Amino acid sequence: MNGKTREEYLSLVEKTLEEVLPGPAERPAELGEAMRYAVGSGGKRIRPLVCLASAAAVGGRAEDARFPAAAIELLHNYTLVHDDLPSMDDDAERRGRPSVWAKYGEANAILAGDALQALAFLTAARSPRNVGGVVAALGEAGVGVVQGQVEDLKREDGAGGPGPLPAESVDFVYARKTADLFVAAAAMGALAGGGGEGDVEALRRFALNLGLAFQYEDDLLDGDSPYSRERTEELVRQTTQQATAALSSLPGDTSFLRALAEGLVGRSR
Amino acid sequence: MNGKTREEYLSLVEKTLEEVLPGPAERPAELGEAMRYAVGSGGKRIRPLVCLASAAAVGGRAEDARFPAAAIELLHNYTLVHDDLPSMDDDAERRGRPSVWAKYGEANAILAGDALQALAFLTAARSPRNVGGVVAALGEAGVGVVQGQVEDLKREDGAGGPGPLPAESVDFVYARKTADLFVAAAAMGALAGGGGEGDVEALRRFALNLGLAFQYEDDLLDGDSPYSRERTEELVRQTTQQATAALSSLPGDTSFLRALAEGLVGRSR
Repeated sequence: MNGKTREEYLSLVEKTLEEVLPGPAERPAELGEAMRYAVGSGGKRIRPLVCLASAAAVGGRAEDARFPAAAIELLHNYTLVHDDLPSMDDDAERRGRPSVWAKYGEANAILAGDALQALAFLTAARSPRNVGGVVAALGEAGVGVVQGQVEDLKREDGAGGPGPLPAESVDFVYARKTADLFVAAAAMGALAGGGGEGDVEALRRFALNLGLAFQYEDDLLDGDSPYSRERTEELVRQTTQQATAALSSLPGDTSFLRALAEGLVGRSR
Repeated sequence: MNGKTREEYLSLVEKTLEEVLPGPAERPAELGEAMRYAVGSGGKRIRPLVCLASAAAVGGRAEDARFPAAAIELLHNYTLVHDDLPSMDDDAERRGRPSVWAKYGEANAILAGDALQALAFLTAARSPRNVGGVVAALGEAGVGVVQGQVEDLKREDGAGGPGPLPAESVDFVYARKTADLFVAAAAMGALAGGGGEGDVEALRRFALNLGLAFQYEDDLLDGDSPYSRERTEELVRQTTQQATAALSSLPGDTSFLRALAEGLVGRSR
């Protein structure tokens, strides 16, 4: 038993983010301010939680995955900053406050996102072991999430916003834009925690299915699934089952990851 | 004597860039196309040349630095794509052809730049040794170059474009926006080539001064130096001398780097 509670994990994530983000004295001050605003605080931090708990699931120490965990959250937040830009989704609000471009201007938002991405890799490189594998996992997600966003921007404009994804794009966008970050989080945590190849693979499978379940469930919540409600509920069940099944062979404490997957199902009911 | 000619280095750089960039069959095709367009071909590739020759300068094999060399060129090109954006320098042309946003649209240019940055780190992680140090060097430059650009955007608008840099910003912008990429190129090459700590430090010093000399000389060529012509020529001489002096302790073949530094001086005369 080496896993921790959600509160302990969250505190490790927030502490590490604070440690790696530029402080108010770092020049230029407005860049650091926009970066800290983008990363915010008090979010759900699901991806870093997956990363820390994956280290525990291979029998390692969650602390060893704290820099990879911060790295995946930095990468995730940079993608949100760029997705919100006027030339992309044109969202002036995020989490109930002005989005980064609405608050700091478009150029500063692009640059804050760029710096967050660089900082994500700089932080991942501080993993105490398997740095090459950790950075490669983050890099694959970094490329994948952009591939997903380019495909996502192909939606035709409909009444009141962009229309649904064309059928042939759904699997690609969900895998690249959503699941890739979960897969990287789990793989980085497993590698930083000292997991062997088989354990890392099992956690990738877990995270792919968790990411897909998360996306289908989100579609149910938002009422804009590309499939029927019945079919989407079936997909949530299937992917959640496959996620938890992938945990069975792992040597460490998988209770946190299992509870996370099972907690996703039924958010919409 | 383990150094190579400029043509051999260039061919290694182009071959490696082609190997790591997405091919036409990779989805979504338009992202890969914009990325390949941004990186272009037949450029001077000064930063990757510095990287390869730094491996030789520590007595290592240039081939061992080919992924780090490609990585620094990918990072450099992403910064150009974003610098050209309408909300930044608003340049519709680059190297005599339409800039990426002018050809592919603003959203695709932001995303192609984002993917190039991720690919840069993914490629750096393929260094055959010292992956942690190689990625950290690239990450520091990745953050630094954005800090420099944020400071650079503070120029007041003048007649016919942005005015000169305020005096207190010159050193900061030159170090972060220009020299940091040269320093990362040299450090990555030295680390990938198996150089010891002292050799890596000497090459960082070389590259910092080379980068500054490069920038001052550019100012002379463009006629927009923040200092008098006489003072700028003096700065070019000083930094070039400091660059070549830093090479003297290195165990490998430094002839390429020496010629590169000396070739910079006098471009403007």
